[in-house]
Amino acid sequence: MPRISESTVRRLSHYYRVLEEVEAEGGKLISSHRLAEREGVTSAQVRKDLSCFGSFGRRGLGYNVAHLREEIRSILGLDRRWRVGVVGVGNLGTALMLYRGFERQGFDVVAAFDRDPARIGRPLGALVVRDIAELPQAVKEERLDLGVIATPLRAAQEVADALVAAGVRGILNLAPRKLFVPPHVTLRTVDMTVEFESLSFALANVVTRRSRRRPRS
Amino acid sequence: MPRISESTVRRLSHYYRVLEEVEAEGGKLISSHRLAEREGVTSAQVRKDLSCFGSFGRRGLGYNVAHLREEIRSILGLDRRWRVGVVGVGNLGTALMLYRGFERQGFDVVAAFDRDPARIGRPLGALVVRDIAELPQAVKEERLDLGVIATPLRAAQEVADALVAAGVRGILNLAPRKLFVPPHVTLRTVDMTVEFESLSFALANVVTRRSRRRPRS
Repeated sequence: MPRISESTVRRLSHYYRVLEEVEAEGGKLISSHRLAEREGVTSAQVRKDLSCFGSFGRRGLGYNVAHLREEIRSILGLDRRWRVGVVGVGNLGTALMLYRGFERQGFDVVAAFDRDPARIGRPLGALVVRDIAELPQAVKEERLDLGVIATPLRAAQEVADALVAAGVRGILNLAPRKLFVPPHVTLRTVDMTVEFESLSFALANVVTRRSRRRPRS
Repeated sequence: MPRISESTVRRLSHYYRVLEEVEAEGGKLISSHRLAEREGVTSAQVRKDLSCFGSFGRRGLGYNVAHLREEIRSILGLDRRWRVGVVGVGNLGTALMLYRGFERQGFDVVAAFDRDPARIGRPLGALVVRDIAELPQAVKEERLDLGVIATPLRAAQEVADALVAAGVRGILNLAPRKLFVPPHVTLRTVDMTVEFESLSFALANVVTRRSRRRPRS
């Protein structure tokens, strides 16, 4: 298998979602054109992305929806279950734990941690919030594959270090700061504050440009 | 002002966060080197990013923390308040509404919508959830600048169209699908499912590569 870029993997996730929808609607075959259209990319891009993993389509017929969905499912590692621990059970961490969509895709939140004594010991869904001091032991006991960091900004790097030291190989960081992990650990960051600020930047600068535009004379 | 790339704006958001921290710790000056270090970029990158907006630093002295923070605040449009409507108040939408961090940065959630009759009319924080049918009218009444889409996947494009038609100029999409908006509207997408799948892909493929590796003979 050639080296796969992060953006290819993201597109595979999107193709997977489109295939799920098409299958739910009863579709049996899909053209690269239609897959592309739903994703806002070119059909050449779709064919190139899929060709990294083998030969799926038949010229003139398109892709078999169920088969391609299964293949992508396996490529994305969704044909097995992943054990997830959430660190920090404020609003965002709690929402993540209660959101059923991840479970449907194979991600089971099996442990939750916090450092706030008011939260430790509380039930949350089917779990009980554990003291973050138990993290190293719990990662091993619960065989955690992935850690989600939903702590305040200042605690995030320390939590990442603890997760890595305990053997977690993948981290989703929701704290609005850059984290550093060793190369054998995969880190993804979702930073909603940055997204909000990217919107306010765009809007503020449109306003500025407009107000600076001279009236026609 | 030259055309600013999305990634420059993201880095500005991060510099802003670092400056807030340094200021809170009592720091008065910061070198481009230290700003860069905290962000995992080069100091040349920092200087280049900041030079797009003017001349802030003094050679050999570094940047005045409070001044630079104020400047970036203004560039990012955080020196005014933005009025935000959240559509879809499931777990994720609710978490967003209750999260205080956005408010601190200038984003006030002033309206919440859902289509589920069981949710309409319910109090949520200081608001009452409104019927999504009221969206066009509410966008005008409440002078909404930004819309957050936290609906299920299938409703997302329809909600985006309604927000755009009602005059919203910026959208944050949390639904796991590609949305299409006209060029005068800015769209950002946060897709946690894609991030999770990007982690499972990385982990699954490390495992596969390892298990395929032949033992030394």
